[in-house]
Amino acid sequence: MDKRNRVLIDGTVIKRSDLRYTPAGTPVLEMVITHLSEQVEAGKHRKVECEVAMMALGDIAARLASIQIGQRLASKGFIAAKSNRYRNELVLHLEEFELLN
Amino acid sequence: MDKRNRVLIDGTVIKRSDLRYTPAGTPVLEMVITHLSEQVEAGKHRKVECEVAMMALGDIAARLASIQIGQRLASKGFIAAKSNRYRNELVLHLEEFELLN
Repeated sequence: MDKRNRVLIDGTVIKRSDLRYTPAGTPVLEMVITHLSEQVEAGKHRKVECEVAMMALGDIAARLASIQIGQRLASKGFIAAKSNRYRNELVLHLEEFELLN
Repeated sequence: MDKRNRVLIDGTVIKRSDLRYTPAGTPVLEMVITHLSEQVEAGKHRKVECEVAMMALGDIAARLASIQIGQRLASKGFIAAKSNRYRNELVLHLEEFELLN
């Protein structure tokens, strides 16, 4: 069994779902953020862009209920497959977030 | 411009490319790891499985030249899109690694 699975990433919300509830009553919210940064790789600065799918389950989903497209977010979470069938499609499961604007 | 983009993840190598070189002579190696762990989400333990595509560029690629399928790896890096066209297909760019077996 592996242990570490930690992601810290900043980005801007470009999509969000409505807040919905699982059959057990747990709040769920899905979002997509776009990330743009500069990283150093092999000694060279490079521009990094990507879109990251995110999912919030539980209290954190309820706290995100009023989040808007265009808001900037510092996110902490772990990555998991979107489904058993598509194990290489990744979703960041949010554990903590902070609004940056 | 965003700042943070950090991933720490453990996993087992399930695919690796040959070591190749860019036209500028920089070594490149691509891998896929499978990750299996238990995380806590909304107060419940859940099994997390995923496959993560990885890319190593520069010295770190050369240091991975002899890595084998089945080796376990602790990885640190940043995520980026596989291409401009598929911005939601993510690749972890390796900055550091440690062999776990």
